[in-house]
Amino acid sequence: MNNLYTEKTLRDFAYNIFIKMGSSEQHAQLASDVLLQSDLRGIDSHGVARLSGYVRLWEAGRINTKPTPKVIHETPSTAVVDGDQGLGLVVAPYAMNIAIEKAKTCGTGWVAVKNSNHFGIAGYHSMMALQHDMIGISMTNASPLVAPTFSTERLLGTNPICVAIPAGVQPPFVADFATTTAANGKLEILQRKNEKAPVGWVQTKEGEPTTNAHGVKEGGSLIPLGSDREHGSHKGFSLGAWVDIFSGVLSGANYGPWVPPFVSFLAPPADPVGEGIGHFVGAMRVDAFRPKEDFFKHMDNWINRFRQAQTIAGQEKVIIPGDPEREQEKIRSKEGILLNEMVVEDLKEIAKKLQVSF
Amino acid sequence: MNNLYTEKTLRDFAYNIFIKMGSSEQHAQLASDVLLQSDLRGIDSHGVARLSGYVRLWEAGRINTKPTPKVIHETPSTAVVDGDQGLGLVVAPYAMNIAIEKAKTCGTGWVAVKNSNHFGIAGYHSMMALQHDMIGISMTNASPLVAPTFSTERLLGTNPICVAIPAGVQPPFVADFATTTAANGKLEILQRKNEKAPVGWVQTKEGEPTTNAHGVKEGGSLIPLGSDREHGSHKGFSLGAWVDIFSGVLSGANYGPWVPPFVSFLAPPADPVGEGIGHFVGAMRVDAFRPKEDFFKHMDNWINRFRQAQTIAGQEKVIIPGDPEREQEKIRSKEGILLNEMVVEDLKEIAKKLQVSF
Repeated sequence: MNNLYTEKTLRDFAYNIFIKMGSSEQHAQLASDVLLQSDLRGIDSHGVARLSGYVRLWEAGRINTKPTPKVIHETPSTAVVDGDQGLGLVVAPYAMNIAIEKAKTCGTGWVAVKNSNHFGIAGYHSMMALQHDMIGISMTNASPLVAPTFSTERLLGTNPICVAIPAGVQPPFVADFATTTAANGKLEILQRKNEKAPVGWVQTKEGEPTTNAHGVKEGGSLIPLGSDREHGSHKGFSLGAWVDIFSGVLSGANYGPWVPPFVSFLAPPADPVGEGIGHFVGAMRVDAFRPKEDFFKHMDNWINRFRQAQTIAGQEKVIIPGDPEREQEKIRSKEGILLNEMVVEDLKEIAKKLQVSF
Repeated sequence: MNNLYTEKTLRDFAYNIFIKMGSSEQHAQLASDVLLQSDLRGIDSHGVARLSGYVRLWEAGRINTKPTPKVIHETPSTAVVDGDQGLGLVVAPYAMNIAIEKAKTCGTGWVAVKNSNHFGIAGYHSMMALQHDMIGISMTNASPLVAPTFSTERLLGTNPICVAIPAGVQPPFVADFATTTAANGKLEILQRKNEKAPVGWVQTKEGEPTTNAHGVKEGGSLIPLGSDREHGSHKGFSLGAWVDIFSGVLSGANYGPWVPPFVSFLAPPADPVGEGIGHFVGAMRVDAFRPKEDFFKHMDNWINRFRQAQTIAGQEKVIIPGDPEREQEKIRSKEGILLNEMVVEDLKEIAKKLQVSF
């Protein structure tokens, strides 16, 4: 297969691109690791496919590739980080490390981040907690594409949440999801295939249900998890709002319709209410609640019981959050990562522009 | 109207019932306040309608009405509370007060609770944080009625989450919701009217979609928020699982299918994996992140902007989480609380049984 790449090839390429953009070696290594983890875990929309977008934002002066993130306020269990307009890919791990350190002494640590940018997959950051026998939580606000229930306006991002929970002999529970019915990446797949979207994913600019996978580009919106009021879209809206407030209002970042777009061809709002985009991350030591061994034993039991749940006829198994991504990771780290043709073209273009071999 | 009662009448009645059950004056006052707040806020399923169920569980020896909840483990920002088999209505506020105290010194406080019972509306507990200029979070696991995506088994409760966020001149943001497509209370309304449920709320015992509002009683299940896989029910399942693990596995309570039923006619599982049901509550001081005035100013701006969002033709307004309940509270505290005929019969029965006037 032509567009099949090894992890190492893509990792080295991403690293070299970040270096050309001015990142330190340490930052380039970290940022490329976040992207590659995404590609390995099967979340194609958040891996190297994002690189060209980061390059364009950097060219537009909207990403600082030599940031010095710092803590601007703290208490024993909390901190606020100013990301210095850096890549979220490096700012969010910086914040998560602070949360982990605070959890070591205090039981839990919670860090709100402002003045950051797109942070890749939420899962990367919460999963950092796992090796410390901690639960990790991460969330971020994002460019407004989602209309609240009953509205025609795009006021929220797809605002993902990830909760990563360690287990004993079982692999960890990792739930990482956009608070919309469908993530934007799933729509992009349909767009490329020129296929229709299920009703409940997208609405037109008048707020009517549509199966047009290009609906958002034509002035419509993504719909909060739940699809419509009768099926609980007000709950999906509540979730997305929660993420926005924790990430934006608590940190001093922008929020709601003021969150700057991730694409360079759209200008950031002229009247910002904060700085950059915002994240919120947390770490909770498992043994701040009960002895580690007890927690792991019961977490294993929880996972086992749910994994063995009786299935509906025709369904193979109940999926434990984190299982599909881990299975992908096993396959892709061996067999390589298959990139979409458009992504390959994109990477070739930035390779040429920044004189990096690809 | 015959079944219209003043707040005071119902509050006094509930108080007297709890006293007859053996609660202390302080506990009876608190427990009746939790129920009345629910009735005032329009959540009929969690108010005095629950009283007879509590009485029956107490008669069955499954609720200790003279509990001494206590902290059995703690760190500066965390604690685990053993609820001593008490009413969740008094155990959860006890835990929330500890979370608030910890947040005062530490920035945030997080308390997992085991050996408790049904805690009423989640909103009551998180809203306790508001008067301290803190964000409140509460969640609980519950009797298993919900099937994971792709499963026919009832392994989770409706596992609600509430996040309450204070604002300045605006009323607080209070998102309080079951992690299913529809709360059980909504189904009960349809059952009484003998009406059909929308597809996506309930599945049959074989896991097929059904509009039968009595489907759960006939061996079927409630469906996680999202309704089906294509519309993100795996996300609703992830949310419900998150609540279950934080409430049950972290605390040492039961979890998943081992959570004891809320009804006395169903026996608790013979092989418990923990003690009672579990809750998880948290409090975060707003000024542990940024100056209070800044937070309130931006929270007001957030709420204003979303409240003024352009609506879809035919829709009156975008609903800010917490608005409908507050509007109900205004009306009902003036005009009284209208009880369903079956609830009135129920209350009369326990009035007679416990010799309390009604």
